[in-house]
Amino acid sequence: MTFTVFGTGAVGAYYGGRLAEAGNTVHFLARSDYSEIRKSGLEITSPRGDMHLNDVSVFNRAEDIPPSDAVLISLKTTGNAGLKEKIAPLIHKDTALIVLQNGLSMEQEFQEWFPDNPVLGGMCFICSRKTGPGTIEHQDYGLITLGALDPKQNPLRDETGRIMEAAGIPVTIVEDLHEARWRKLLWNIPYNGLSVVLDSSTDKIMSHPSSRGLIKTLMEEVIEGAAACGCTIEAEAVEKMMIFTDKMIPYEPSMKLDYKNGREMEIEYMYDRPLAEAAIKGATLKSISMLRDQLKFIQSSYLGN
Amino acid sequence: MTFTVFGTGAVGAYYGGRLAEAGNTVHFLARSDYSEIRKSGLEITSPRGDMHLNDVSVFNRAEDIPPSDAVLISLKTTGNAGLKEKIAPLIHKDTALIVLQNGLSMEQEFQEWFPDNPVLGGMCFICSRKTGPGTIEHQDYGLITLGALDPKQNPLRDETGRIMEAAGIPVTIVEDLHEARWRKLLWNIPYNGLSVVLDSSTDKIMSHPSSRGLIKTLMEEVIEGAAACGCTIEAEAVEKMMIFTDKMIPYEPSMKLDYKNGREMEIEYMYDRPLAEAAIKGATLKSISMLRDQLKFIQSSYLGN
Repeated sequence: MTFTVFGTGAVGAYYGGRLAEAGNTVHFLARSDYSEIRKSGLEITSPRGDMHLNDVSVFNRAEDIPPSDAVLISLKTTGNAGLKEKIAPLIHKDTALIVLQNGLSMEQEFQEWFPDNPVLGGMCFICSRKTGPGTIEHQDYGLITLGALDPKQNPLRDETGRIMEAAGIPVTIVEDLHEARWRKLLWNIPYNGLSVVLDSSTDKIMSHPSSRGLIKTLMEEVIEGAAACGCTIEAEAVEKMMIFTDKMIPYEPSMKLDYKNGREMEIEYMYDRPLAEAAIKGATLKSISMLRDQLKFIQSSYLGN
Repeated sequence: MTFTVFGTGAVGAYYGGRLAEAGNTVHFLARSDYSEIRKSGLEITSPRGDMHLNDVSVFNRAEDIPPSDAVLISLKTTGNAGLKEKIAPLIHKDTALIVLQNGLSMEQEFQEWFPDNPVLGGMCFICSRKTGPGTIEHQDYGLITLGALDPKQNPLRDETGRIMEAAGIPVTIVEDLHEARWRKLLWNIPYNGLSVVLDSSTDKIMSHPSSRGLIKTLMEEVIEGAAACGCTIEAEAVEKMMIFTDKMIPYEPSMKLDYKNGREMEIEYMYDRPLAEAAIKGATLKSISMLRDQLKFIQSSYLGN
């Protein structure tokens, strides 16, 4: 199985790096870091073993990349508008799209764009960040939960999972991708948004009773939204996720880094889409909606949108 | 009628100044500005006419102030804890307490402390700020809506209103102080809190659709809370208050100034008390509660509480 990594950032470079390190053919599409990666390769520090990849198969134009069996979509969802045309050169007959993004409804969109191609979704539970051009610091975790949009792609899902595991990437196979996406939002919705609005990191947010209570309220609303959309998440998941976060290294979620660096935030797929899906099913999620509105205002103050 | 101003800040100095200018006996209690006011008086710029008051009857100890008919309580509610002992030397038989603070339930508290004294509440619709020691910039408005906690004090309320009006202070008499307090919260709850959390001013908050929508949601929740507490505020008040704010000068509410200057914010009386009163009556105000929790977290980040 050959791979193309579309978006060589903190997530794509790490997973693509692991796959390449294990001997798989992996092409990387890079924009700003292209020259540096071409010259010096990828430098990835990781508690699971550092990687230095020389002679990386890196490209700066999708048109130049040879056909591969799977494309790992690892750019941020803020790049999804107009993405169809940009990834089209990579999507050949039978090329699988493996969506390693955060949010809801990306897979459905990719499937609409490429109706005959298999679409998988991977929820990445990973703390990692780019520290420079072609330089990634993998801080902790790394599990991918992998599901297929269409159950008839379950064999491909399982095969992909095996290849990832063989490359040292822990994988959990999920039967219900939709539910798994909502489960991932259980963490993403409260921590990403609050870390921006409160200009803080996970450890500080968890250490004050007011913000800790807010995290709980937001998680309960995610469960409410998921339930409205037909996805049952057990109430105990809230406490479990909070204890998990208590044990995490002090962390700035990706949206906080986007904010700090003046980049567009992933508000649409992480907030608008779940809120819209829940609203269609009659669920009004007031706290999540307020957080979304605050994020949009804050983003407008530096992007002017 | 003689007055003592307890809290010679942006509000107390302005109203006390107007009363003194009109010939009433007004004593001022000042802390940090005492020496400056004693030396140079009070300097108040105002679109309704500048005032320079020389030979101000200013004190820095409540014990030294001669008895007066009314005490204007114009310090921030963050000073209300332990205030009973501090104002006790000023409260003689028949001394009226006129509470010019923002929030809910202050009058009830003062009445508990001084059960035999008349208690009035004044809601100040004023844009003003302290620009230096003894120096106040009155920016706009100035209306006081005046109500009595106990209806048997309505004659005193009316007399106080007449004296204020004679001093150039516009006054509206209200029959229901409790309802008037909730009406004041209709502005205070959304704008004070959001100006801190979004680190912004009223004009910017009103100019973006997301934050504008949030203001509306918060106002609707204030009306919901008021209704639960037996105070009917008509739904049209939301639109009216928003149009009013659109026409205001770009303004940083008092809580925003407290935040900018690293001072404690009036979270307890402006958020905790209304939320608690509504909760007792069975109303859960999710957006206001979220705003309160955010404010507490933000305050803890600079006060460490």
